[in-house]
Amino acid sequence: MKREKGLLIVLSGPSGVGKGTVRKALFSQEDIELQYSISMTTRQPREGEVDGVDYFFRSREKFEQLIKENRLLEWAEFVGNYYGTPVDYVRETIESGKDVLLEIEVQGAMQVKEVFPEGVFIFLVPPSLSELRSRIVGRGTETEDVIHNRMQMAKEEIDLMDAYDYVVENDKVEFACNRIKAIVQSEHCRRDRVAKLYKSLTEVE
Amino acid sequence: MKREKGLLIVLSGPSGVGKGTVRKALFSQEDIELQYSISMTTRQPREGEVDGVDYFFRSREKFEQLIKENRLLEWAEFVGNYYGTPVDYVRETIESGKDVLLEIEVQGAMQVKEVFPEGVFIFLVPPSLSELRSRIVGRGTETEDVIHNRMQMAKEEIDLMDAYDYVVENDKVEFACNRIKAIVQSEHCRRDRVAKLYKSLTEVE
Repeated sequence: MKREKGLLIVLSGPSGVGKGTVRKALFSQEDIELQYSISMTTRQPREGEVDGVDYFFRSREKFEQLIKENRLLEWAEFVGNYYGTPVDYVRETIESGKDVLLEIEVQGAMQVKEVFPEGVFIFLVPPSLSELRSRIVGRGTETEDVIHNRMQMAKEEIDLMDAYDYVVENDKVEFACNRIKAIVQSEHCRRDRVAKLYKSLTEVE
Repeated sequence: MKREKGLLIVLSGPSGVGKGTVRKALFSQEDIELQYSISMTTRQPREGEVDGVDYFFRSREKFEQLIKENRLLEWAEFVGNYYGTPVDYVRETIESGKDVLLEIEVQGAMQVKEVFPEGVFIFLVPPSLSELRSRIVGRGTETEDVIHNRMQMAKEEIDLMDAYDYVVENDKVEFACNRIKAIVQSEHCRRDRVAKLYKSLTEVE
């Protein structure tokens, strides 16, 4: 297939649905080539962490400058440190023909959508809300109040589905991965992405 | 995954691109379940042909009545006989949850699109026009004039690409089939097709 450039794949969904597990499973598979979206942070590197591999480690001044210049796909402050996704890195990777996967909370995904609407937005859902409930409860580390609040949050997050292109059920990690791989392959065949390339065929000869 | 109903997959593309070969290969594979769209015709059954399996065999009167009642997805007259796709059969199969594949010339596909815009329209393209040329020439049964005319027609047909959802290159039948299977799986995850089903989750409990 002719390929113009890579895609930005945004994987999101309610808390507790298993986004991280699915992301890790995807990166462990050989029949899909994805580039991991490297985050930027102002926190100190931990032992063994490498700049440009684990994170882009930057100063607060530099980070705040990027915020001002709209050069972050999304960002948030967490326990006194900034975390975000640098748009330049994503754009350069995509231009080089590689697909980038960004696994992110729903709030961040909505920020990305504003800056990068041509991304492929995938919403991961639990097979059922009660299943989600049992997964959250199953961790055994939360009080009833926390569980109730998280369920309420999940319901509100599921209502955010409308901003996404695809809904993928995480009934089994393997199945969810297969669906995401199909979506990536299918998006590379979308007419609005490839028509210009193919039309040039009729101008040869 | 939750599935509301099946999809109508319309496979089309320029003459000589290999639509029939790809369709046959798809139906021979076990990891995709597709229903073949049975055509209706006014011609006489040949030996061994069974009504409702090979074709729906109908009288001219019946066929013309269906045309009048807009109950054909597409139709054409060929050497004195009508050929067409009955919309009722397609709708019933889809409602039962099965995906229907319709392999058809570009003129027919455009008729289908008018009646059934929610279908998934896939345009099969040759890896290059010169490749297409050599395939047509390779048959060895055509004069230079016929070849020239078919190439001209192919160019015009490729311009019809804009009416399709996906462009699939037929560089190798196996690859083309894999892309089509990915498109079908991906379309079943499209948010606008499944959102209603999933939103009902938040109303349980």
